[in-house]
Amino acid sequence: MQLPTYDDVVAAAARLAGHAHATPVLRSATADARWGARFFFKCENFQRMGAFKFRGAFNALSKFDAAQRRAGAIAFSSGNHAQAVALSARLLAMPALIVMPQDAPAAKLAATRGYGAEVRQYDRFSEDREALTQRLAAERGMTLIPPYDHPDVIAGQGTAAKELIEETGPLDRLYVCLGGGGLTSGSALAARALSPACQVYGVEPEAGNDGQQSLRAGHIVQIPVPTTIADGAQTQHLGNYTFGIIRRDVTDILTVSDAQLVEAMRFFAERLKMVVEPTGCLAFAGACADAAAIRGQRVGVIISGGNVDLARYAALLAP
Amino acid sequence: MQLPTYDDVVAAAARLAGHAHATPVLRSATADARWGARFFFKCENFQRMGAFKFRGAFNALSKFDAAQRRAGAIAFSSGNHAQAVALSARLLAMPALIVMPQDAPAAKLAATRGYGAEVRQYDRFSEDREALTQRLAAERGMTLIPPYDHPDVIAGQGTAAKELIEETGPLDRLYVCLGGGGLTSGSALAARALSPACQVYGVEPEAGNDGQQSLRAGHIVQIPVPTTIADGAQTQHLGNYTFGIIRRDVTDILTVSDAQLVEAMRFFAERLKMVVEPTGCLAFAGACADAAAIRGQRVGVIISGGNVDLARYAALLAP
Repeated sequence: MQLPTYDDVVAAAARLAGHAHATPVLRSATADARWGARFFFKCENFQRMGAFKFRGAFNALSKFDAAQRRAGAIAFSSGNHAQAVALSARLLAMPALIVMPQDAPAAKLAATRGYGAEVRQYDRFSEDREALTQRLAAERGMTLIPPYDHPDVIAGQGTAAKELIEETGPLDRLYVCLGGGGLTSGSALAARALSPACQVYGVEPEAGNDGQQSLRAGHIVQIPVPTTIADGAQTQHLGNYTFGIIRRDVTDILTVSDAQLVEAMRFFAERLKMVVEPTGCLAFAGACADAAAIRGQRVGVIISGGNVDLARYAALLAP
Repeated sequence: MQLPTYDDVVAAAARLAGHAHATPVLRSATADARWGARFFFKCENFQRMGAFKFRGAFNALSKFDAAQRRAGAIAFSSGNHAQAVALSARLLAMPALIVMPQDAPAAKLAATRGYGAEVRQYDRFSEDREALTQRLAAERGMTLIPPYDHPDVIAGQGTAAKELIEETGPLDRLYVCLGGGGLTSGSALAARALSPACQVYGVEPEAGNDGQQSLRAGHIVQIPVPTTIADGAQTQHLGNYTFGIIRRDVTDILTVSDAQLVEAMRFFAERLKMVVEPTGCLAFAGACADAAAIRGQRVGVIISGGNVDLARYAALLAP
């Protein structure tokens, strides 16, 4: 197994130029004063379709050869990866088939179809999602793009940290939202190349600390689906590629509670005027919990996305 | 009365460099597709203290001579201007005294004091705010900075549109949130210089259409305090400077309902992942209401600010 490298991140950045947004890096004098640090917030909630996932999906689909393009891409996801593959396929004029649970939120189904993708729904209780997807891929000759454990996906996700560090210069610490590890491993590749002394932290929900357990154990630990408001980090295990990079290049994996996520979400709304989904709050919540360590430091925070149902968001904001 | 010019905007930009944020210009493929236009959102909700007001206040205070700096600045405001003067004074190491009503929200009092300003509260029903402020200014030798009708304030506010058009190139139409007219008149100065064919629109709340009435009548029309959720646009009349520029350089003044503001606010949260205060939604709501006119056009939208109480914001977002 050949792990992707920073050269792959550079190549991904070239493919994404003109397609992905070069998202802004925001500062907050209030955050800096409160924690005695210098924060740099990389805002992937402002990315196309509202999350960093567009970067990895577009990079992977861009590398398809002519036959793959004709047949198109297939993915299983009820979250941001579904929309990322759907939008990337539309932009690259290829078919996309997304396998989603029957009980996926109507808004997510509509958004995925809105990007022109075909949606195949399945029964979570009676059908095996992966087997179904493999069968559909074989029948139609489509290329399966997994949500995180793929070198092209990882390289694409790494372009966010590349942009961040190219804009800010070297950082002391970089905090990244951690689910399956695509964003964290890609970010680590970029940080190692552009800011070698930077310490890189993945941040998980307390209830879903499979990454932390894996790092401690030295092998991938699988957990039951965790209960957390960070729905993008309900992954049960890291992947072979993501774990391979994380164990080599990531300093540590931290965890935060749902209450800390809500506190960070409110801070983002009140002070940075940004809507951040619960999963997107992991990195900042982790940095804040690390208060003694970040004092006096240049701290990068990668906000992964902003896709949250408005009614749910309003309920979380209300005191 | 000498109206400020674009040269004053350029000079203000030089004073603001390194102090004000060069706020990002965001795009939205969803908005572009829905209205068939190309939108460029200038995000002053990401400005320091959460609103464009910092630009005008900092520019005005920067021009104080040594004696003025020693005595400091005085302002009356219960809104963003209070915080803008307080923060600017702190950055420029001078005293600030803000005159605020006794029943101003505790959060705004705290924020203003948090920037180091002295706050003098008054009884809205028994005390004359302007007379009180004039008396305090005379007693302490402080310089009064009005919220909008001042050449240095107008020139400072114009730097947002200057940054926008320098980044985007010429625009066909520019929509600006209109209260007392500081942002609209400053924006018009910048647009006339940098994109002479651009049509500039101020957008007011329906209930507070004093600007529209003034433009129609050819003189400043004063109205009672309007009832609208756009609390930053509850001004009762334009000023002599702002009206002088608006009547010369602004194409027209449009109005929108509170319901249209809430719709725009939800769109900003859901699609652009941004918290925008009701007043800050005026420009986009006005552009959307102008649907036939914006089709196929390059449309600038200046979002004025994002300072809204979280509980109130959550209540407005909830369906």
